Amino acid sequence: MPSVPSVRVYDLPVIRDSRGSLSYAEYGKDLPFITKRYFVVFDVPAGEVRGGHAHKSVEQFLVCVKGSVWVTIDDGRQQIQILLEGPARGLYVPPLIWSTQHGHSPDAVLLVLSSETYDADEYIRSYEEFKNLAGTE
Amino acid sequence: MPSVPSVRVYDLPVIRDSRGSLSYAEYGKDLPFITKRYFVVFDVPAGEVRGGHAHKSVEQFLVCVKGSVWVTIDDGRQQIQILLEGPARGLYVPPLIWSTQHGHSPDAVLLVLSSETYDADEYIRSYEEFKNLAGTE
Repeated sequence: MPSVPSVRVYDLPVIRDSRGSLSYAEYGKDLPFITKRYFVVFDVPAGEVRGGHAHKSVEQFLVCVKGSVWVTIDDGRQQIQILLEGPARGLYVPPLIWSTQHGHSPDAVLLVLSSETYDADEYIRSYEEFKNLAGTE
Repeated sequence: MPSVPSVRVYDLPVIRDSRGSLSYAEYGKDLPFITKRYFVVFDVPAGEVRGGHAHKSVEQFLVCVKGSVWVTIDDGRQQIQILLEGPARGLYVPPLIWSTQHGHSPDAVLLVLSSETYDADEYIRSYEEFKNLAGTE
């Protein structure tokens, strides 16, 4: 049994008033881990596909803070597609999930929070290796 | 002497290729703390001013991941104004700094990473109290 939560979509709180809107997530509520790294993906040309790997141990939390993007999630048994659109929807992705992103809107900005700092050896870049590690081959 | 770094602007790495652009920061490099909370501010009407408080102990890292916003930083002795525009510029704001944001572009999305979860008692909302705590009155 994995010691981390499963893939999950979070509907995040949004506070709207006359000064604008604010959305948030925090550890212990909507954010299942403490963040050591973030990255943002932007200016993705139409038709491009990003991602296409899994992680051995890193947990991630994806929020499309501007525009929209489709995320494909694959646990080695089945695939699901999830539309991320705006700051109010967060997607938790545990380790050993193959994930790709596609269909970025021209203005899309995808924020990814990561539970660990960057380690190239921690990536699974071969789908065959992923299937072996996920125990589903 | 404070045990935290001073206000600092970070020029963050950006990786650009045919699939789009990616910018990042991580703890131990460009990010001086581990993040327990984030929030995003968006859809701010023209002319609005946000912020207008300081924190007793929370550290923050501001990145305007889309559009632009002006940030005013006040340490009780002097004020400086900093333009945040795009994911490649991060602003570290330590505790006991009075900060406001204004001049948001219509598409601005301001990401704020925070070293602690939300605690209303941790905010300093009176400028007079801030001046007392900052030891400059």
